[in-house]
Amino acid sequence: MKIEIPQGFKFYSGNAGFYSKERPDLLIIAAKEGCSAAAVLTTNKLKAAPIRLAEEMLNKNKIFSGALVNTGFANAATGKKGIKDAQEILDFAKKVLNLPYPLIPASTGVIGSYLPVDEIRKALKSLNQHDDLELAARSIMTTDSFPKFHSIKGTKGYCLAGITKGAGMIGPSMATTLTFVMTDADFSPFFLKQALLSAVEKTFNKIAVDGEQSTNDGIFLFSTGKIKVDKGMAKEFEMLLVNLLYELSMKILRDGEGATKIIKVITKGFASTKDAQSVAKRVALSPLVKTAIYGSDPNWGRIFASIGDSDSYVDEDRLKIFIGNHIVFNGEPVDFNRNELINYLKGDFIEIVIDANLGKHESYFFSCDLSEKYIEINSSYTS
Amino acid sequence: MKIEIPQGFKFYSGNAGFYSKERPDLLIIAAKEGCSAAAVLTTNKLKAAPIRLAEEMLNKNKIFSGALVNTGFANAATGKKGIKDAQEILDFAKKVLNLPYPLIPASTGVIGSYLPVDEIRKALKSLNQHDDLELAARSIMTTDSFPKFHSIKGTKGYCLAGITKGAGMIGPSMATTLTFVMTDADFSPFFLKQALLSAVEKTFNKIAVDGEQSTNDGIFLFSTGKIKVDKGMAKEFEMLLVNLLYELSMKILRDGEGATKIIKVITKGFASTKDAQSVAKRVALSPLVKTAIYGSDPNWGRIFASIGDSDSYVDEDRLKIFIGNHIVFNGEPVDFNRNELINYLKGDFIEIVIDANLGKHESYFFSCDLSEKYIEINSSYTS
Repeated sequence: MKIEIPQGFKFYSGNAGFYSKERPDLLIIAAKEGCSAAAVLTTNKLKAAPIRLAEEMLNKNKIFSGALVNTGFANAATGKKGIKDAQEILDFAKKVLNLPYPLIPASTGVIGSYLPVDEIRKALKSLNQHDDLELAARSIMTTDSFPKFHSIKGTKGYCLAGITKGAGMIGPSMATTLTFVMTDADFSPFFLKQALLSAVEKTFNKIAVDGEQSTNDGIFLFSTGKIKVDKGMAKEFEMLLVNLLYELSMKILRDGEGATKIIKVITKGFASTKDAQSVAKRVALSPLVKTAIYGSDPNWGRIFASIGDSDSYVDEDRLKIFIGNHIVFNGEPVDFNRNELINYLKGDFIEIVIDANLGKHESYFFSCDLSEKYIEINSSYTS
Repeated sequence: MKIEIPQGFKFYSGNAGFYSKERPDLLIIAAKEGCSAAAVLTTNKLKAAPIRLAEEMLNKNKIFSGALVNTGFANAATGKKGIKDAQEILDFAKKVLNLPYPLIPASTGVIGSYLPVDEIRKALKSLNQHDDLELAARSIMTTDSFPKFHSIKGTKGYCLAGITKGAGMIGPSMATTLTFVMTDADFSPFFLKQALLSAVEKTFNKIAVDGEQSTNDGIFLFSTGKIKVDKGMAKEFEMLLVNLLYELSMKILRDGEGATKIIKVITKGFASTKDAQSVAKRVALSPLVKTAIYGSDPNWGRIFASIGDSDSYVDEDRLKIFIGNHIVFNGEPVDFNRNELINYLKGDFIEIVIDANLGKHESYFFSCDLSEKYIEINSSYTS
């Protein structure tokens, strides 16, 4: 079944031969009549050339022709030549497709190698035009084991469609991974930027595979404005955008390098939101918690230790810890049905609830378990 | 060859059957005529019962009979009963060995189970008295694959001897792991405490296996004062204490769960010490850097990305990155001899030097690589 995409967008997939002769490794998302753009970019201090260029373009321009994404090479740690290379490819692509407005660059892949400009130019001469969201998602994959995309329709027929990539180097800082969301809903650029920031905070900024932050992360939202919307639809749009980004972020966790389970840590009863956030993130990122869950080991003491290791105020006497529906700590150890808990831990979605019992502030954080496979994938990435 | 231990100490090893009928799992370090004590304890907010008791005792008393250490059970997350259990065992041990002063408790093992008081009492009735530093170290092992001990002699014959344990849950916060240092040098308790704090800052607070901090960590320094020292020996003692703790901390890294290599990250040229420290620690703890080094993969882009992910100020144009003697980044990628670098990475001590080229502040941090074995060990610890 063909997935619907918003009006006014076309995709162009290309192959520069970075992975194989068949697998696409280049994508252009093109709005020939132009689109507005909003973005949330990596907070890494050593930003890749395409991120620096994108930042500049977003500040200078209001209308874009879309984005040019290459995989295989991050074009990070490439100094001034990196900027020049990215610009050269953008100019070339714009000419080949005869696009009136600038394309925003995005790159993902190995850090520290220059872009193979000639191969990319060659690939840009024989692009495959299509409107297949799945193929678009497939064209930006690196170590991903499946393409990640999702599409939602709103009232009066506007559409939100997104693609994302990423399986490792997923960390809890603004806009981790490369994600492109397209819509035809005619909201103002200002509203779209605010909606994106807020949705990222609730979804992508609440997930982590390994806590690693990339030099190249970005989430982009493009709108052709082909479908007229009235102001009353703003709330719905915000909600659908959160849903879309939630679905995409869960696909990243499911495909987390070596991951077999999603972990959701819910914190409540804390004295402040900051405390609740800090504990949720600390526990979700603990390698000892992640390995225990991988092994379906009901070793809740590791959850306990990592709660204490955060900056947040907790009181052992008031603290409660649940794994699924099983309470394991209630100011003191609780006798629980070990076999039932192990059975629960064998599932692929594990919920941990931490109740500080001190106030009414809450938060949550998603991560995945840590398996031998993560090591296998990451001990030989470039070689 | 018998290793010398400081005068006035005796060891008592016991077996409560926690691991096997042969393997000792209890240790008493006893100074029958009393000793002074200094300690650096975990900063985890959910401290184990023995840590809370030890803190209280160190505040209340000046002379001690030594320490009682049990393995197998951390006696953490055990509420009021945990305190009562620890106290009961301390009282019993003191009576059995007829000791005049209090024993300081220390526990290590699984979090969230009550101490098996009866088994420990039984074991305390048939202790094996000895003066074997290696056997003492063996008696406090948990997942360690070898006993960790070291001994040094100072001028005029005073002695410093230490034992330590730990292979995982080793994180970069004050006093991670259980370590006991004994000396007969007659320095004041105040001086010993200062010397310990300073030596821990330079050694144990600069290592990490997995960045996990335990509820039970502590480093203890006991002195019987049997050897008279003059003030002029203070500097030497401080240096020897750093050497001793350095040797012990390196043994922990060598035995880091699944570790095959030690990683030393050296930072220099930063605008502040805080910046230099933050980058050294961030890079040393990066799972992607650790897995790349495990795989002898010269993927320096991961070092680059994690430098940018710290809070410190860096400037890509001025930044230099070395792996061993090989410069891999100098404001832009450097052509390096890939085979030679891979050969270097196959060694078991890998040095990474990061020069921000912005100022004159420097720091360092030690960690180890991350292998499949870490997952294997930690996915089935309690089961």
